[in-house]
Amino acid sequence: MGTESRLVRWICWLTVITAFFMTGFLIGWFARPTSTDTSNDEDSSRSMRDFLDEMRAENIREHLRKFTRLPHLAGTKQNLRLAEEIKEEWLEYGLDSVEMVPYDVLLSYPNTTQPNYISIVDHLGNQVFNTSLAEPVPEGYENISDIVPPYNAFSAQGQPGDLVYVNYGRTEDFSQLEREMKINVTGKIVIVRYGKIFRGNKVKNAAFHGASGVVMFSDPADYCATGVQPYPDGWNLPGGGAQRGNVLNLNGAGDPLTPGYPAKEYTFRYRLEEGVGLPKIPVHPIGYHDAIHLLKNMGGPIPPNNWKGALNVSYRIGPGFTDTFQTQKVRMNIQTNNQVTRIHNVIGRVRGAVEPDRYVILGGHRDAWVFGGIDPVSGAAVVHEIVRSTGRLLRRGWRPRRTIVFASWDAEEFGLLGSTEWAEENAKVLQDRAVVYINADSAIEGMYTLRVDCTPSLHTLVYKVTKQVSSPEVGEEGMSLYESWHKRDNWTDDRDMTGPIWSLRKISKLGSGSDFEAYFIRLGIAAGRARYTKDKKTERYSSYPVYHSVYETFEVVDRFYDPSFQRLRAVAQVRGGLIFQLADSQLLPLDASQYADSLTKYAHSIAQLGQKHQDALITYGVSFDSLFSAVENFTTAASSFHERLKTLDRTDPLQVRMANDQLMYLERAFVDPLGLPGRPFYRHVIFAPSIHNKYAGESFPGIYDALFDIEHAANPRRAWEEVRRQISIATFTVHAAAMTLTPPA
Amino acid sequence: MGTESRLVRWICWLTVITAFFMTGFLIGWFARPTSTDTSNDEDSSRSMRDFLDEMRAENIREHLRKFTRLPHLAGTKQNLRLAEEIKEEWLEYGLDSVEMVPYDVLLSYPNTTQPNYISIVDHLGNQVFNTSLAEPVPEGYENISDIVPPYNAFSAQGQPGDLVYVNYGRTEDFSQLEREMKINVTGKIVIVRYGKIFRGNKVKNAAFHGASGVVMFSDPADYCATGVQPYPDGWNLPGGGAQRGNVLNLNGAGDPLTPGYPAKEYTFRYRLEEGVGLPKIPVHPIGYHDAIHLLKNMGGPIPPNNWKGALNVSYRIGPGFTDTFQTQKVRMNIQTNNQVTRIHNVIGRVRGAVEPDRYVILGGHRDAWVFGGIDPVSGAAVVHEIVRSTGRLLRRGWRPRRTIVFASWDAEEFGLLGSTEWAEENAKVLQDRAVVYINADSAIEGMYTLRVDCTPSLHTLVYKVTKQVSSPEVGEEGMSLYESWHKRDNWTDDRDMTGPIWSLRKISKLGSGSDFEAYFIRLGIAAGRARYTKDKKTERYSSYPVYHSVYETFEVVDRFYDPSFQRLRAVAQVRGGLIFQLADSQLLPLDASQYADSLTKYAHSIAQLGQKHQDALITYGVSFDSLFSAVENFTTAASSFHERLKTLDRTDPLQVRMANDQLMYLERAFVDPLGLPGRPFYRHVIFAPSIHNKYAGESFPGIYDALFDIEHAANPRRAWEEVRRQISIATFTVHAAAMTLTPPA
Repeated sequence: MGTESRLVRWICWLTVITAFFMTGFLIGWFARPTSTDTSNDEDSSRSMRDFLDEMRAENIREHLRKFTRLPHLAGTKQNLRLAEEIKEEWLEYGLDSVEMVPYDVLLSYPNTTQPNYISIVDHLGNQVFNTSLAEPVPEGYENISDIVPPYNAFSAQGQPGDLVYVNYGRTEDFSQLEREMKINVTGKIVIVRYGKIFRGNKVKNAAFHGASGVVMFSDPADYCATGVQPYPDGWNLPGGGAQRGNVLNLNGAGDPLTPGYPAKEYTFRYRLEEGVGLPKIPVHPIGYHDAIHLLKNMGGPIPPNNWKGALNVSYRIGPGFTDTFQTQKVRMNIQTNNQVTRIHNVIGRVRGAVEPDRYVILGGHRDAWVFGGIDPVSGAAVVHEIVRSTGRLLRRGWRPRRTIVFASWDAEEFGLLGSTEWAEENAKVLQDRAVVYINADSAIEGMYTLRVDCTPSLHTLVYKVTKQVSSPEVGEEGMSLYESWHKRDNWTDDRDMTGPIWSLRKISKLGSGSDFEAYFIRLGIAAGRARYTKDKKTERYSSYPVYHSVYETFEVVDRFYDPSFQRLRAVAQVRGGLIFQLADSQLLPLDASQYADSLTKYAHSIAQLGQKHQDALITYGVSFDSLFSAVENFTTAASSFHERLKTLDRTDPLQVRMANDQLMYLERAFVDPLGLPGRPFYRHVIFAPSIHNKYAGESFPGIYDALFDIEHAANPRRAWEEVRRQISIATFTVHAAAMTLTPPA
Repeated sequence: MGTESRLVRWICWLTVITAFFMTGFLIGWFARPTSTDTSNDEDSSRSMRDFLDEMRAENIREHLRKFTRLPHLAGTKQNLRLAEEIKEEWLEYGLDSVEMVPYDVLLSYPNTTQPNYISIVDHLGNQVFNTSLAEPVPEGYENISDIVPPYNAFSAQGQPGDLVYVNYGRTEDFSQLEREMKINVTGKIVIVRYGKIFRGNKVKNAAFHGASGVVMFSDPADYCATGVQPYPDGWNLPGGGAQRGNVLNLNGAGDPLTPGYPAKEYTFRYRLEEGVGLPKIPVHPIGYHDAIHLLKNMGGPIPPNNWKGALNVSYRIGPGFTDTFQTQKVRMNIQTNNQVTRIHNVIGRVRGAVEPDRYVILGGHRDAWVFGGIDPVSGAAVVHEIVRSTGRLLRRGWRPRRTIVFASWDAEEFGLLGSTEWAEENAKVLQDRAVVYINADSAIEGMYTLRVDCTPSLHTLVYKVTKQVSSPEVGEEGMSLYESWHKRDNWTDDRDMTGPIWSLRKISKLGSGSDFEAYFIRLGIAAGRARYTKDKKTERYSSYPVYHSVYETFEVVDRFYDPSFQRLRAVAQVRGGLIFQLADSQLLPLDASQYADSLTKYAHSIAQLGQKHQDALITYGVSFDSLFSAVENFTTAASSFHERLKTLDRTDPLQVRMANDQLMYLERAFVDPLGLPGRPFYRHVIFAPSIHNKYAGESFPGIYDALFDIEHAANPRRAWEEVRRQISIATFTVHAAAMTLTPPA
């Protein structure tokens, strides 16, 4: 072999070896994942299926049975024991950690030796009638002690007086009473029916107009469905049942003595007389059997038709009784006491695998007025099953991308206290890290279809998740919950439609009255809630009939609302599915363009409301143009943002994180640190309850309330200035939110 | 060759080829960076050196020369022209983008046809003396028009009255006047000397005590250094010079007519009489030549020694003049007008390469009372040179990890308006993304050494950066700025030392009075400032003598303060170095443990202040224990946090981001959304000015002010309750901040 051919051979070999080395190098280079962000949306969607399928109707039934055996009022031993039980079981299910978090908050209980009641006294001071001291106990619960009798928590103690009937006790009812009927309630006891608005607003209105006390009754017109028997033969409210409930006007303050700060050992407490939202007058709830006795002999004018309920009385306005009964007075014997009491939240956590510092929260309350068959245990049982299913997935090796926090709140019934104190204690961390808060109060209030209230950015996800859940209705096998809901609520998908038809749209605004309040309205965390509901088009009663009575038992659900527990299972899958997707998707499933659509809709609604005063708009130079232009700006920013998302390099963990941060902080951008006028803890400029009704969420609440005030304003120039100021704040806020969606630099 | 040996050979070759392939694969695998986070701290530190070396003394001199040729008061054409010039040059230097950002804010100017002055009028109404209408113009500036005469911006218009001399017009001066001297100032014109506290606080105090006007003069005791000639022969204030300045009490509100919101076209504006912080009485500044005429014939008691200045007058208190001059009155002829005026910020940006959504801000104002030789142009010239140096680095291919924002603010002199409006407009985005704000007002106020005021988490970085900068002092060649500063300020490094020795420690707390206010005290963004200063131990005059007079020229710097411009260069390197490190370090150079040390120190100080009232502490159940325990908790959390940082996987971009987020949001955690009592825009619980002096930063200002009030309290029980409430808020805030440092899940 010549040196030349040997050289050639060596060169050949070298080339081959080099080629193999290079091939190896290149394969190695490209085989290595460039990112530690190993999210895989396919795996995630398989896990989601397992997660939903794992939830079982019979388990939810068992949880409900177990958690409703005894009354578990906030601040009682039973409710603490329940908290400990939940903690143990969540740990057994496999959560990474579960802790009890106590606070010392102001609660309110009836005096156990001097019961509350209302009496009619004759001119000699003899009690000629007393309302009942308790509700007749339902069958099967005769031996249960510690059933708290009907009362209005935080009521002041009482005095005698004449009755005046003021319909639902709304702002407009008092207005009609004073302006049209010329009746002044100063020093009178106001009797109002429950319903339409939050009871605390009724009390505020009564006190504002000078009333010395408030009696609230459940009228069959508002608390009985037609053709339904009273419990236990059906799910209507019996005549001896009454609605408990607090009558605070907290406006999001949490514990009345520690507004803005968590009620810890070191926390400064205001004096009782300085406490936030405590009524200064006595308030007491009664059932309709007792109400008949108070109403039947009332004198004064005949009421307008829409003030008449369904009792066989004339609903005369008063003041006082008629003819032979004129000398009789009504006395409120109220001995309820406020006391600082320890409550306990249970907080469970699953550590996120990739972004442990991003929190997806599912929270609902545990405390109940009595057994809490619907409120809250139908919801708490659902959460329990979601936790169990989460634990099963964890044991199979799954772990969510983000941290999941499960919360069992205490003392919701006393003013959302447990959830608000925890929000206050963790405000900074939540502000920085919370992605979403899903609320889990009562999971059922009717037998018709799904009801979802949520922030607009969650709309798209709600649709997606409900398509993955089956309809729980008999005869709808194979139909998705989405389809069933769509069909039953008779949606229109026409987005260009204006006017009242909008009220038929499928997803509603969040109001208040449950534990999402501090998270959504104070902190600006995207939030939502889902439950099974009645048919709004035909079922006109308020809430559900046995609401907050002793008849909210396991049986009312088991026999009437959801015998197969398929409806509660569907709600569990919706709540759980939302949590799952938000915790595990690489890119947050939040939709800024849906927010834009909603803002457009709200801007039109509020401008329409303003248009009722067309002349004044001109006189006082009020225009909605700046708001419309801000909403347009937001719409463009949102759609460009989602365009850019399509080309995002999803293998680059920082790119993904930055986009997710923009999505997460979008809701935060709608918070005004200065709060709404006079309500420092209601800070969401787009969604908050009106000052006239805590339950209902209004869009652009600052503008809404300013416009509402126009009608009653002593100084219209000032009142219109306030409208202008509120439009300016809304305009600024929408622009600021748009800015968070533009490229960061 | 047999088949067997051929087979062996093939196996050998295969093995070799496989080995090469595998080697290639492995090298490829490991050569590929697993992270898009390609930060390299070595490269970064080389770039830092280039960045600092690029800054030139002669350039700073040129920038100063160029920007001080004409007066450039906020809201004037000249200041707009200057803004445009700066914008052009920043673009030329190579910033990615530069924009002008306008706002329409309330400014205040003297009436050009009816000048402001103070007169002494005799009993016939004849003016027997008038203060000068303007300062004598310095040589070289005789042909300059548009020099605004001395005035106090936002002064009300004026009335006649008797004079009362109240020393510096501090809370304690008025207290001494009323309690010890029994002199009531109701309806009198108060004459006070400038110095010690912010002039707006003097006016607030005077108005609170019922005065009908305020005359402020610069006393040589406070505005002349011993052994120094008046300008132009030295840097002392000449007798004809007077200090301009606004007399607002904004407490961080920004534009008085749009508190809380940016002053845009669509923004609602309050009426002038509702504006925030506007004085209701006339106020006017005079020089000491004029002051002699007002003071020399005053009657009333001889003042205490510490009320005497350095003028050859008796400093009698008044009210009114003595003996033969008794019938003379003082009249304030003030015709200053408030008007909504357009101002312009200039905002320049360098997009971050890795984390464009993290902002490092260097901002300082551009507007000046006249030429602004020191305030602000010594600072603005330094920023200009930093921008130039940044541009040079960008052209060489460098790009910072994070986004850098450069800001030239307008209308600082009228209440920090430009910076506050921009903070308001961008609040949401800044809240989410701002890492730090470095302030760049006047870069020099003395010839002695460095002065740094900053948040505790920046202390460590300040030391590091100053070690990389050379001392600018002649005779200190080869010495670092750090060493020079250490030596000149006579530091003690003994951290355990207690008591007043602490005041000698090298880095001070941030107060207010410059543009960092909205960023630090309202939004909770880590902040700092650095400048060259006088020797506090020997130089007792307030500020620097020519402060806010027409004598703040280019020459006062060029001839006296920094002829070689080495001091300004050193300040440029400190400010620039801080920005560089904060923008380019992979891990944010913020130190939570330094914060813990400072909190410990402050807790001791404030408790010591409380201990002055030991009996009351017991009577009213006031204890600082909870605060100490919170600080301990914070200290543990901070030190565990920094321990964990040591083992952080720095190749994992999400790990790094999560740790940086904790560092970035630490400062935010000290913000109370409810604000300090009555001051909704001062929200930092650890640092804010006392209500008694805007200039000086107090630690735990809520507790400090509550304790201050104890002395004057009508109801001590209430006053001590407020102390307890403030301790509780501070305790909560420190706990909440500790929580942000614990592992996120």
